[in-house]
Amino acid sequence: MVCLVMKYAGDKDNLTARLSRIEGQVRGISRMVSEDKYCIDILTQVNAAKAALDKVSLLLIEAHVKGCVVASVREGDMHKLDELVGAVARFARA
Amino acid sequence: MVCLVMKYAGDKDNLTARLSRIEGQVRGISRMVSEDKYCIDILTQVNAAKAALDKVSLLLIEAHVKGCVVASVREGDMHKLDELVGAVARFARA
Amino acid sequence: MVCLVMKYAGDKDNLTARLSRIEGQVRGISRMVSEDKYCIDILTQVNAAKAALDKVSLLLIEAHVKGCVVASVREGDMHKLDELVGAVARFARA
Amino acid sequence: MVCLVMKYAGDKDNLTARLSRIEGQVRGISRMVSEDKYCIDILTQVNAAKAALDKVSLLLIEAHVKGCVVASVREGDMHKLDELVGAVARFARA
Repeated sequence: MVCLVMKYAGDKDNLTARLSRIEGQVRGISRMVSEDKYCIDILTQVNAAKAALDKVSLLLIEAHVKGCVVASVREGDMHKLDELVGAVARFARA
Repeated sequence: MVCLVMKYAGDKDNLTARLSRIEGQVRGISRMVSEDKYCIDILTQVNAAKAALDKVSLLLIEAHVKGCVVASVREGDMHKLDELVGAVARFARA
Repeated sequence: MVCLVMKYAGDKDNLTARLSRIEGQVRGISRMVSEDKYCIDILTQVNAAKAALDKVSLLLIEAHVKGCVVASVREGDMHKLDELVGAVARFARA
Repeated sequence: MVCLVMKYAGDKDNLTARLSRIEGQVRGISRMVSEDKYCIDILTQVNAAKAALDKVSLLLIEAHVKGCVVASVREGDMHKLDELVGAVARFARA
């Protein structure tokens, strides 16, 4: 089953806008390294980019749960639940 | 005190190469979203980008410890040690 | 709605056994501190206890998803999905 | 070299008090499981215990940095710096 999750959730534009901002953040970090900025300040920016990626992951998980997982449960397919728990584990590095 | 850590550590090129690869990864994630790829597969790529950013953070911490922190300790300045512990806490989200 | 999740999942004994092992791990860490063990070795044991707690969290999330969340979806109640996403965010510190 | 870090840092009592509180938290989580408490509420308590363990790790890292690492640097031994960076990586699961 293909899960057209973004079509359900309608937030593709939100996600691509966030990702394009993150690209800019990473480019800014690269510039800070080139310009010999203070390492603790660079670390702060890397943490911010990571937090922004986590928000993307959470939006994907939310879209996945509300889209694919709900649809699967309604069809009586419980397989997606194990996949979801695995994805949460990898996301949390647990 | 400015800490020209990259000059000590000599790995500026390594860091900027990594960051430019991460930029490409983020662009690839954006493309996956546009192309309605399966959300669990997109999540895997987001995790990979996060892991790559963590490696950058670790290299920065290593350069900072071996550069600024060692230099400060030799000069008898212990202030950088508290700053380092704070940076580790934020990096680990502890 | 009360969610008698453990009754669905049937792994209450598994969870309490894990938690009692974790209690023992924490007691062991305390002993290492009292006995002036090397700090890096103590850190390794703290990481192990944290990983064991994460496994408990994952089992709880799995039980919750397969129990309460599925039951709610079947009853047409989508409220549990937002609660789940919030719990995942806090678990992953995202 | 044995690193009697707690003797330098003088916070052994602080650490053992924290660990004994964490033991109590873990026992409380076990009780919640036995009493069929709501899984999201149990998760909240597991997160709190993990955060308390992280504070212990940070205190250990701080004691290690201010004790062993500083002492090693003064003696011209740089080996402890790599060990520290490795410990930070494992702590942050990076």
